[in-house]
Amino acid sequence: MHLDLAIDPVELTAVLVDVPSVSGNEAILADAVHDALAAQAKHLELARSGNTVLARTNLRRPARVVFAGHLDTVPVNDNLPHHRTGTGADLVLHGCGTVDMKSGDAVLLTLAAAVRDPTHDVTFVFYDCEEVEAARNGLGRIERELPEWLRGDLAVVCEPSNAVIEAGCQGTMRVEVRTSGRRAHTARAWMGENAIHAMGTALRTLADYRPRRVDIDGCQYREGLQAVGIRGGVAGNVVPDACVLTVNHRFAPDRSIEQAEAHLRDVFDGYDVTVVDRAPAALPGLAAPLAQQLITATGATPVAKLGWTDVARFAALGIPAVNFGPGDPTLAHTKAEHVAAAQITACAAVLRRFISS
Amino acid sequence: MHLDLAIDPVELTAVLVDVPSVSGNEAILADAVHDALAAQAKHLELARSGNTVLARTNLRRPARVVFAGHLDTVPVNDNLPHHRTGTGADLVLHGCGTVDMKSGDAVLLTLAAAVRDPTHDVTFVFYDCEEVEAARNGLGRIERELPEWLRGDLAVVCEPSNAVIEAGCQGTMRVEVRTSGRRAHTARAWMGENAIHAMGTALRTLADYRPRRVDIDGCQYREGLQAVGIRGGVAGNVVPDACVLTVNHRFAPDRSIEQAEAHLRDVFDGYDVTVVDRAPAALPGLAAPLAQQLITATGATPVAKLGWTDVARFAALGIPAVNFGPGDPTLAHTKAEHVAAAQITACAAVLRRFISS
Repeated sequence: MHLDLAIDPVELTAVLVDVPSVSGNEAILADAVHDALAAQAKHLELARSGNTVLARTNLRRPARVVFAGHLDTVPVNDNLPHHRTGTGADLVLHGCGTVDMKSGDAVLLTLAAAVRDPTHDVTFVFYDCEEVEAARNGLGRIERELPEWLRGDLAVVCEPSNAVIEAGCQGTMRVEVRTSGRRAHTARAWMGENAIHAMGTALRTLADYRPRRVDIDGCQYREGLQAVGIRGGVAGNVVPDACVLTVNHRFAPDRSIEQAEAHLRDVFDGYDVTVVDRAPAALPGLAAPLAQQLITATGATPVAKLGWTDVARFAALGIPAVNFGPGDPTLAHTKAEHVAAAQITACAAVLRRFISS
Repeated sequence: MHLDLAIDPVELTAVLVDVPSVSGNEAILADAVHDALAAQAKHLELARSGNTVLARTNLRRPARVVFAGHLDTVPVNDNLPHHRTGTGADLVLHGCGTVDMKSGDAVLLTLAAAVRDPTHDVTFVFYDCEEVEAARNGLGRIERELPEWLRGDLAVVCEPSNAVIEAGCQGTMRVEVRTSGRRAHTARAWMGENAIHAMGTALRTLADYRPRRVDIDGCQYREGLQAVGIRGGVAGNVVPDACVLTVNHRFAPDRSIEQAEAHLRDVFDGYDVTVVDRAPAALPGLAAPLAQQLITATGATPVAKLGWTDVARFAALGIPAVNFGPGDPTLAHTKAEHVAAAQITACAAVLRRFISS
């Protein structure tokens, strides 16, 4: 299929949305992106890895900006093809991927084709499998196989952020807190030891926990410590010998993974604690000169990113990274996903200003 | 098949054990019991209801004793036919039903055939479906359809009790304690309300709970309040909006079901409490003259029954009821179920003494 990168990014969003690309099935869209860049952005060096398409300038500018957008979406939920409501300045595009994140991809693709003489060198990464387990993530594969393509002085991940810079991201860690006991018939409960009862103190600790609020580079990160699951029990007349509480901790970027784990072991002192999932936080990195330029281009004050995104990968590589893209992140993954055309237009204008001035 | 009720109750136990009679499949055994009583205990009035066989004297004695034993077993667990270890006074019978409760049935069947001129009128109830849901219980069916067959001044349920009188039984009640909250993404936990955290106080209440010990008729009943299950959780990154704790309460026979429920609502004040299962306790009733005679016949001090048995049905009818039978109740429902022949012999001797003197 053919993509015209010269059209308005709002219209290009609609075209991209109507090419289904659920994680693992990005080939048609990746081919189209590759072919469009090859034909319509001849000033860019192109590369391909699986269903990830990479493009960059080599202008020996003093600094390089890496722009990243994933091509995949969560499963379609009876919300394709796209439809429209409103007109003109009130136009809204509805459908799977309008927010997360084909509107961001459209902004990047038009930018890639249109700005042939940017003031910074630019790299574009359109990657696959962001919406599934981390091991399949296309950006992770590029990091392993083509690491030089991720080098730069600022990374802009165009995940939905309501067209405001969302800086850094919180880390996330999931732990299992376990208690053990001894089974017995409930008619002779004193012969057993109840593992569910033993979880009471841990739950009270959670209820009483006061999460930190951490200010970094003017962004406030609100931490969190939440039970997300609990299970235990053998039968209706048996004192249970095991209980498992799953807890999700979101931590501010002033803490490493190791520090976050140490904190959880301290909070649940006396319990058996196992880390089952973890991803590092990313510092906002807004002090970087390029980040300051991007802030100026937006004309707005950055806010903290609360969820976890691939900016953390760039931060782990030592590259300041921000989220900046059209769409309300709380609509991502919902059937009612929709984006205001005005946000797409605004993002495109900001990024064009950023790399042209 | 033919049952000889004149043989030693130990040998009759072995014969009964080798006729499989898992709940719902008691027909062959019930037929054999019926035919044996008809042919070998002509002094008894016989009745049949489904796979329940009833037999009684009508001698106009001043008092009547009701003896009850269920014919069914839990599913066979690779433990049939029976096998033997030891000899003489150390003989042990192994196999499904040796404890629960074909040894008790054998004691009752030999008693029914042998004692033709008892000092009390006697009623024997051999019933089906005790090991399954209460609605199918054969004794419950007799209660509804042939209630006059359950009338008496003392009921002896020959459930395994190590050949000691276990008096009355505790009541049991299962409740679900629920909390509710509001879902939110864990990265924005302050927008939600965690239902698992809210369960902490209930668990601490359980951990701190001091169950009563209640003495009635010289028997001590130890109550219990135990969490037997807990569940909650939506996904690894979602503040959960519901948590359900299941609690089993065992209560002494000085409390009615209504009083036990009121107590639980008091203990879990502020929580949503639903009763999901309940069965009343039974007072030991040892002050009854016939109970005193049985105690004398055993020559031992009665103890409290802690589990729930069908004695509660008799107690609910106003009939003092005790458990008295061969076998260790903690072996019931296990693959390793086995009974000492000496306990069978002892029980048979006690009951013969009881209704002959």
